[in-house]
Amino acid sequence: MNEFALIARHFTRASRDADVVLGVGDDAAILRASPGRDWLVTVDMMVEGRHFLAGADPARLGHKLLAVNLSDIAAMGGRPRFALLAGALPDADDAWLAAFSRGLFELARTHDVDIVGGDTTRGPRTLSLTLIGDVAAGMALRRDGARDGDDVYVSGTLGDAMLALAALQGRTAIDVATLADVRRRLESPTPRVALGNALRGIASAAIDVSDGLVGDLGHILERSRVGAQIELAELPRSDALDAKLRSTERPAALAWLVAGGDDYELCFTAPAARRDAVAAAARHSATAVSRIGRVTSVRGLAVTDEDGAPLAALPQSFDHFGGEDPPPIARAPLR
Amino acid sequence: MNEFALIARHFTRASRDADVVLGVGDDAAILRASPGRDWLVTVDMMVEGRHFLAGADPARLGHKLLAVNLSDIAAMGGRPRFALLAGALPDADDAWLAAFSRGLFELARTHDVDIVGGDTTRGPRTLSLTLIGDVAAGMALRRDGARDGDDVYVSGTLGDAMLALAALQGRTAIDVATLADVRRRLESPTPRVALGNALRGIASAAIDVSDGLVGDLGHILERSRVGAQIELAELPRSDALDAKLRSTERPAALAWLVAGGDDYELCFTAPAARRDAVAAAARHSATAVSRIGRVTSVRGLAVTDEDGAPLAALPQSFDHFGGEDPPPIARAPLR
Repeated sequence: MNEFALIARHFTRASRDADVVLGVGDDAAILRASPGRDWLVTVDMMVEGRHFLAGADPARLGHKLLAVNLSDIAAMGGRPRFALLAGALPDADDAWLAAFSRGLFELARTHDVDIVGGDTTRGPRTLSLTLIGDVAAGMALRRDGARDGDDVYVSGTLGDAMLALAALQGRTAIDVATLADVRRRLESPTPRVALGNALRGIASAAIDVSDGLVGDLGHILERSRVGAQIELAELPRSDALDAKLRSTERPAALAWLVAGGDDYELCFTAPAARRDAVAAAARHSATAVSRIGRVTSVRGLAVTDEDGAPLAALPQSFDHFGGEDPPPIARAPLR
Repeated sequence: MNEFALIARHFTRASRDADVVLGVGDDAAILRASPGRDWLVTVDMMVEGRHFLAGADPARLGHKLLAVNLSDIAAMGGRPRFALLAGALPDADDAWLAAFSRGLFELARTHDVDIVGGDTTRGPRTLSLTLIGDVAAGMALRRDGARDGDDVYVSGTLGDAMLALAALQGRTAIDVATLADVRRRLESPTPRVALGNALRGIASAAIDVSDGLVGDLGHILERSRVGAQIELAELPRSDALDAKLRSTERPAALAWLVAGGDDYELCFTAPAARRDAVAAAARHSATAVSRIGRVTSVRGLAVTDEDGAPLAALPQSFDHFGGEDPPPIARAPLR
């Protein structure tokens, strides 16, 4: 089977979206814009050995590649619409492609996303997905709208993905049932699309937590030219992570919670006057939301511990090009 | 310098397009649609060792990554607008990034393309670019519009990129001045955007020749459910390639001409009644165009040689996953 047949077989599905004038199979896809809506476009790349290990479950990989991009559209308050896939693969492995495309299309179907184009080539396994969404014109949730006095929120729980990674790599021990739970967070994250949509007109700024709370909230603060104070005690965490935090492994657990990546929760700000609206958005989207602190006029991010004392040194978020540090919490290999 | 600073430094430029509501630096870019226009979206990926060799000139690489995508938008008759870059890089080499972004942005400026987003990570050097263009609604040039009796055309000349590759790899000998010429075709191709735009409303189908004429014209024929007969004598070629065709190297030269990739010319069809309009489009876009044959109702592609006899075996276009064959004309490494 040649390349074209492979692509046709695994990635061409009939589009169910009337705005796809032409999908996979031409030089470019043709998309019709809906009046009064802005387009949102984002891209994320995942590299074998960096974001996943050789031998990673291809179905979960397909899910995750789309999920991390859905998370970006969620953080803009957008509706996901169309995706283009670019992939380098070491070989034309039919079983691998079948599983990968199954994982990708299952999540795509859940979120009404059409795969409208792509490019495949031979090379070290590298997967890149471009996701196009839309949003009512002018209503996107941006990073630059946080104001002094706003509340700071985060969805779900933080740190479980990095707890799973540490356990898989033998750096910490957890029981089998807990590992299954947190491993799902790492390998099959749930993008918070419904919450992002419910927050339009309510949140003043939003970002998804892909590189860790410290770094990602830091982007909101920088873009909005404000600071924030957050309370460690308020950071939502699983029982498993909470147990680690109360053990001799507290330093590692603190890093997973405050600076661990790959959680794909939303971090957002909203005026204190909108607390009821935030609670309603959380309810409507069936997504847990925790208020973790407030925006201040003093630039920078301060985290206070359970006794109200500021943490002396904040664990730093992962930097893809930052060299050797900090490998233990790198947003890195799945097993 | 960390990842975010690197990205900011090399890939963030002020947008000059009023339809970019928000560019690089948020979870997604925000783009406003122009009324009455459809979007065109395409993606191409280039892998070190496959599409270019380690040590390839980064400025030419930046140019080519955008050029191959511009060529796709050209083949749709579209106006290029916005790009997103995803790249895996083995290291954060400031000089490499500076040269790469210079090559990319120079061509982007020529075609009024804004880079509105991206993702960078560490990994084997792999570059992926998503290009978004637009076109008057319903006016895109597709692959499925060729009709029995249409003329078949190709722009520029074919085969020079593969001649350059063969010369660089020591598989053929050409003089220094000729090498400089054909090497430019390989490493810095000129996308035929102006021609593609001039052909709207005239061409019945179009594709860009990235994988070789046989394969790419074959896609038009397959999608349009027609066949074609083309004349070898009419295929436009440089003097250098013509000389090879009349030498003992004829078999290789024939393969470069008929099935060599990486030329990024346009192949298109148009009704015979529109010959004057095609000539005017060529003139207006200052692009040479040659009529090379005609569309027939007999499925398949036939090529007749200079004596009017059908070629027994057509050299095949390059297939990324086709295994070892045909390596000599693989759309592959730059030097």
